[in-house]
Amino acid sequence: MATKNLSLSQLSGGKTYTEIVFNQVWGKVEAYRASHPQQQLFMMAFGDTTQPLPPTVVRALVEAANRLGDRQTYTGYEDISGNPALRSAVCADYYQKKMDIDPSEVFISDGAQSVSVNIQELFAPDNTVAVQNPTYPSFVEGTLVAGRPLVNLPCREDNNFVPKLPDEKVDLIYLCFPNNPTGAVATPEQLQAFVDYARSHQAVIIFDAVYSPFITTPNIPQSIYEIEGAKECAIEIGSFSKWANFTGLRVGWCVIPQELTIKNTVPGELNDLWRLRHAVKFWGTANIAQHGAIAALSPAGQQECQEVVKYYLENARLLREGLSATGLMCFGGIDSPFVWVKAPQGLSSWQFFQKMLQSTGIVGVPGSVFGDCGEGYLRLVALGPREEIEAAVKNL
Amino acid sequence: MATKNLSLSQLSGGKTYTEIVFNQVWGKVEAYRASHPQQQLFMMAFGDTTQPLPPTVVRALVEAANRLGDRQTYTGYEDISGNPALRSAVCADYYQKKMDIDPSEVFISDGAQSVSVNIQELFAPDNTVAVQNPTYPSFVEGTLVAGRPLVNLPCREDNNFVPKLPDEKVDLIYLCFPNNPTGAVATPEQLQAFVDYARSHQAVIIFDAVYSPFITTPNIPQSIYEIEGAKECAIEIGSFSKWANFTGLRVGWCVIPQELTIKNTVPGELNDLWRLRHAVKFWGTANIAQHGAIAALSPAGQQECQEVVKYYLENARLLREGLSATGLMCFGGIDSPFVWVKAPQGLSSWQFFQKMLQSTGIVGVPGSVFGDCGEGYLRLVALGPREEIEAAVKNL
Repeated sequence: MATKNLSLSQLSGGKTYTEIVFNQVWGKVEAYRASHPQQQLFMMAFGDTTQPLPPTVVRALVEAANRLGDRQTYTGYEDISGNPALRSAVCADYYQKKMDIDPSEVFISDGAQSVSVNIQELFAPDNTVAVQNPTYPSFVEGTLVAGRPLVNLPCREDNNFVPKLPDEKVDLIYLCFPNNPTGAVATPEQLQAFVDYARSHQAVIIFDAVYSPFITTPNIPQSIYEIEGAKECAIEIGSFSKWANFTGLRVGWCVIPQELTIKNTVPGELNDLWRLRHAVKFWGTANIAQHGAIAALSPAGQQECQEVVKYYLENARLLREGLSATGLMCFGGIDSPFVWVKAPQGLSSWQFFQKMLQSTGIVGVPGSVFGDCGEGYLRLVALGPREEIEAAVKNL
Repeated sequence: MATKNLSLSQLSGGKTYTEIVFNQVWGKVEAYRASHPQQQLFMMAFGDTTQPLPPTVVRALVEAANRLGDRQTYTGYEDISGNPALRSAVCADYYQKKMDIDPSEVFISDGAQSVSVNIQELFAPDNTVAVQNPTYPSFVEGTLVAGRPLVNLPCREDNNFVPKLPDEKVDLIYLCFPNNPTGAVATPEQLQAFVDYARSHQAVIIFDAVYSPFITTPNIPQSIYEIEGAKECAIEIGSFSKWANFTGLRVGWCVIPQELTIKNTVPGELNDLWRLRHAVKFWGTANIAQHGAIAALSPAGQQECQEVVKYYLENARLLREGLSATGLMCFGGIDSPFVWVKAPQGLSSWQFFQKMLQSTGIVGVPGSVFGDCGEGYLRLVALGPREEIEAAVKNL
């Protein structure tokens, strides 16, 4: 007699982020639209890209499709850790930023979402997981469905949304900088403190660097590996989703350094275990999409992707400045596409969501959805088309 | 202090199928090649496709790439359960075969490998898993890394490689027909017996139908849902990998019927849980590859894919008949691309592997790799180019 997984089912009943965004937020928007059919609405809730793939990437996809259609150039299964040329290209990009990552340390994934959650499988089921609060919700949900204990690291205005070190025992620490949802970044000193903590407590940092190409502030690390000692204690997760418009193509990566060790492991062992996990539970992402990713990392591709990032950051600037001009307090939007807007007059997140919707047509996600420390904020995403951002700002 | 996942690490040290095939088998081949540089070798070990994508699929990939490169037609995240048009096309294909599957019951995956293992997450950690022996090794490995108890269902010549019903309590039952590695198929009566068992014991069948397009024998079910009552007790897994040459593109699906219930669940609940799992741990496979899959299911695509299947089955026929003509006993190769060759003179699988390599240059996978009931057999895969199959047969 089969029985259900209680850890998974405890999240059912509309309690996941995806369901909240797609049902609750979208439900309120639909209801509002029905009663105000004339009002223009501006969707800034979903972290989805809206601009086309760079031409260099499109050309690579077309070429890869044609090669797959030709008997002479057809290939089947890709290397289980990812296309070797793509892994080398990822390493070359690190090297350009003065970090030394070996292709054997890079695993190509189907985006950051799955790997950021599944990476927990390297660790024992009783390991305690620390997450920023507010945080990208999958880190919490992945921890809950795995049945692991959870510790919150509050991120508030008074600490610039960068958490203090944990003051209780934790084993795994999710850090996301530039941060989703707050848009905050961490200084080298702040990251060094976490690396030192992890090394002295044999904890592991899972560093979500998905938005690092958006960093514009000088001296802000784009990777945890810019910090001394990080290769001994940190896994890094990257993605092509937001800076190359790959959300639908599903290509990301993680770095599991050979030096990374935890209790009773030798160097290389966790890296080997992750390859094993690929072999048993994941056979890689689409080969054609991996060829697109190689093109995104080519000199021409990188230049085009920089234009993509500039476009979204200009969106964020317009939005932030437009909101600030009305007297609202805004965070983020400088090193990330997220603008984190403080609710005025003590409004709750959901009240502010509703007020913003009614008075400006702008649709965000209530900050409380990202954790209780997000209460009193609204997250806006500047990944939309420019003309919508401009029209929204004019409406403020 | 982080600690390692012992369930995952118990499989380390070269104990996985992938490592055995790619290290042990490949190692012996390389050693042999080094000492016999003149001898032509014929790789029939890996279940990888070698023929090009059908032209209709290539056209769809190119069109999808160009649409993603155009601001007007760009799309980001795909629907979390998979492209709706693809889910409908999968259902239309079932409907054509007189089965009634709703698009809400279909989840698009990144191939059969991951979903066939990850599907266990729907169920409690103590659920006992039954597998055919010999079996595709991931079912065993996925069970071991999840820490679930395992029961073997022997498949031998005396039962035509179709197992008897379990005679101890089991909760989940993997059935794969046409079978990898034996190539065996199951009759409607044999499948009905398993469905009846599952219904009376509230067990769940996980039916791997990946090779069903290869079925040529009349009255052999292509889907478990051809069997009465199966929608109450069975999950089915399909894939585009082998019949559409999609191994590198990573598109498959699973069906979780609304009627499927287990202890303390209501209809639709397991289906909902799997959607939740997608949202937390998997955001879908590449959108461009999904467009390729839609094309594979179009009338023109299906016709081209039938040619692909015919090609591989003709390979299998040539191989099987060539081997039989030398006096070897062969199974499979009629409804699947697998030929399951019995070792002569009481040779072990590895001895037979070595003898076949030395005397004919043919490289297979020793049957014992698929479970102890595979001892004394060799698996050959007929997915190679025709000219290699012909040359190998001439060599026999």
